[in-house]
Amino acid sequence: MSTVVPPPDPEADPRVKARFDDIRATRKSDFINNMWLWLAFDVDLLERTWAEVKAVMATPSTLDPLVKEMLYIAVSVTNGCGYCIHSHTAAAKAKGMTEAQHADLLRVISLAARTNQLATALQVPVDPTFDAAGEN
Amino acid sequence: MSTVVPPPDPEADPRVKARFDDIRATRKSDFINNMWLWLAFDVDLLERTWAEVKAVMATPSTLDPLVKEMLYIAVSVTNGCGYCIHSHTAAAKAKGMTEAQHADLLRVISLAARTNQLATALQVPVDPTFDAAGEN
Amino acid sequence: MSTVVPPPDPEADPRVKARFDDIRATRKSDFINNMWLWLAFDVDLLERTWAEVKAVMATPSTLDPLVKEMLYIAVSVTNGCGYCIHSHTAAAKAKGMTEAQHADLLRVISLAARTNQLATALQVPVDPTFDAAGEN
Amino acid sequence: MSTVVPPPDPEADPRVKARFDDIRATRKSDFINNMWLWLAFDVDLLERTWAEVKAVMATPSTLDPLVKEMLYIAVSVTNGCGYCIHSHTAAAKAKGMTEAQHADLLRVISLAARTNQLATALQVPVDPTFDAAGEN
Amino acid sequence: MSTVVPPPDPEADPRVKARFDDIRATRKSDFINNMWLWLAFDVDLLERTWAEVKAVMATPSTLDPLVKEMLYIAVSVTNGCGYCIHSHTAAAKAKGMTEAQHADLLRVISLAARTNQLATALQVPVDPTFDAAGEN
Amino acid sequence: MSTVVPPPDPEADPRVKARFDDIRATRKSDFINNMWLWLAFDVDLLERTWAEVKAVMATPSTLDPLVKEMLYIAVSVTNGCGYCIHSHTAAAKAKGMTEAQHADLLRVISLAARTNQLATALQVPVDPTFDAAGEN
Repeated sequence: MSTVVPPPDPEADPRVKARFDDIRATRKSDFINNMWLWLAFDVDLLERTWAEVKAVMATPSTLDPLVKEMLYIAVSVTNGCGYCIHSHTAAAKAKGMTEAQHADLLRVISLAARTNQLATALQVPVDPTFDAAGEN
Repeated sequence: MSTVVPPPDPEADPRVKARFDDIRATRKSDFINNMWLWLAFDVDLLERTWAEVKAVMATPSTLDPLVKEMLYIAVSVTNGCGYCIHSHTAAAKAKGMTEAQHADLLRVISLAARTNQLATALQVPVDPTFDAAGEN
Repeated sequence: MSTVVPPPDPEADPRVKARFDDIRATRKSDFINNMWLWLAFDVDLLERTWAEVKAVMATPSTLDPLVKEMLYIAVSVTNGCGYCIHSHTAAAKAKGMTEAQHADLLRVISLAARTNQLATALQVPVDPTFDAAGEN
Repeated sequence: MSTVVPPPDPEADPRVKARFDDIRATRKSDFINNMWLWLAFDVDLLERTWAEVKAVMATPSTLDPLVKEMLYIAVSVTNGCGYCIHSHTAAAKAKGMTEAQHADLLRVISLAARTNQLATALQVPVDPTFDAAGEN
Repeated sequence: MSTVVPPPDPEADPRVKARFDDIRATRKSDFINNMWLWLAFDVDLLERTWAEVKAVMATPSTLDPLVKEMLYIAVSVTNGCGYCIHSHTAAAKAKGMTEAQHADLLRVISLAARTNQLATALQVPVDPTFDAAGEN
Repeated sequence: MSTVVPPPDPEADPRVKARFDDIRATRKSDFINNMWLWLAFDVDLLERTWAEVKAVMATPSTLDPLVKEMLYIAVSVTNGCGYCIHSHTAAAKAKGMTEAQHADLLRVISLAARTNQLATALQVPVDPTFDAAGEN
């Protein structure tokens, strides 16, 4: 059950087709997952979102592609986005995440959530030394 | 302003002193940040929290220590924990995070938050292929 | 699957019946959605919740009824409440939200989530000029 | 206290200057708020963020500019982003939000948070009629 | 720094005065905390909010007043509301919360946040036996 | 659908068997709910999580066991963790939570979410008297 209906034949629209072709070429796969089918209900939204995802996630940068997938999972779990957890866990596995690394990821993000609660509940004051302006 | 008062002389309690000594030895630094001073209001809470932080963050595992700090930041930002953002950004920098990596981290976690909203707003159904039970 | 069982014949209770009648009259529709059926497990909770929803959402005020539905969606998406996203998206469409407005809404709330992460991650200090007390 | 140090003379970098000039021209104001000064620590991040903010918030669309600011506030409050709440409340006032509308906005977003908790706590099943695919 | 300015002499408005008098009488204290002063910028919002707080928090019910304060803290910490954490921790202490209970509360809410992350990250399916409809 | 596959015969691993035996003994029940079956994909994660849950939730402390379950629900609802809401609501009922107490719990946590939004939206400054350091 969803809040919009994806277009029945999305690639009939040449702008949608161009993005789907680019998704397939970038990922070297014929599979288009539901996120893109649903976003195709509004071509502009599809274009902007894919442009950003491609630039950040599928373009070499200072962080390893697998690390970026794990960061994506960390945010998605904290926000409780079931779709995103599923799609990015699958992506992380496709990029080589082992079961041991998956468990490690879970240890870190669940510990972070725990100490977030403690620091927030205590309203611990920030140590002045943590201020970036104080670095040299 | 905080919700508990840290003990004025925390290391007068030998259990607190033992943990603080271990924090200093583990981190090879004399600095005890406020989180531990405040947690010392309850020795059990201090002990459990440090034991977990040491086991997860200061023990070699399948993930790089810097990656673990960045995951910690990702969760802390999503939860809006100011103290944790400050302390783990400082820790990540101490472990070598460059300014370019910091910006990369921000690109990933802000993109994740954005697409989390889209997938959640559309209530996109999870693709059956993402089910772990379907892997082989 | 839910955590309480709605009463099998809720309108046998005259207090429930009175609220359901008011819901139907206010909305000019015979349909009572699940939220109200489930809340009927506790009449007081049903009464308070409906009284507030009616006062805020179904009473003319300085904001347009459709704008109020879109604000409701914005909060519900950010909180990840699937039920609320579905019910208020349906309500917004019933009040005239076009597909283009729906896409616009998604652009704004997903951008907001993204810049929320950036401002929080950077811990940007609030500009003094934003203080309401400084206005004149 | 923040996690990065904004560049001391950001407009010495012509790419930063170009964006700041565009911000000033778009807003018809000389004021550059801290968000942009801090984002200037990484020019790419500044460029992408401003491009998106300009396209979504400062370009005519199907939603009224003031409505978009109120949606931004709704998300920012729910995420607890203090900076964003301040900057977008100021922006909404600059676009004409009255005190009565501000109070109305608060009534709606606080009610939404309340019923989000109820629907989530009860795990109310979504009514089949809310499925977008069932519309006609 | 805040987003509205509380009225300089709030009790000049008889409706505000009536609520403040009721707050003082209900709490048996002359102290009016900032939340109410700020809400007085809109009398209707002040009236509704106080009516609800009084009915839920200051009226005998099936839960102990101290338990209700601790539940309030649990939600406020999870939402990251600094003001609410401070005011309700103070209220819990005034109602007798000991330091040991405070630490216990922190243990429970930080553990809950941790296992929330685990269950969400794993997308653990709900056991059929948890369905309320299956009880008997 | 989940992101890991629980081991087909988890108790073939003696470390898993030991924890499951302890879960059964602690709870005086043969039932092992899905959370533990799924966590068994990584024995270390299972051990740490159960050790903590047992220490906090199944060990006498200054808070009543039912109160601890209700606090767990409060956090889980605010975080939107469906699995946790189901399992801890079932646990609270097993520990004697009446329908009236359940409704009371919902009244408190939904009110808290509402006033969290108000205090955050207004950015109400914390009253100096709430500072723990000022107590005596």
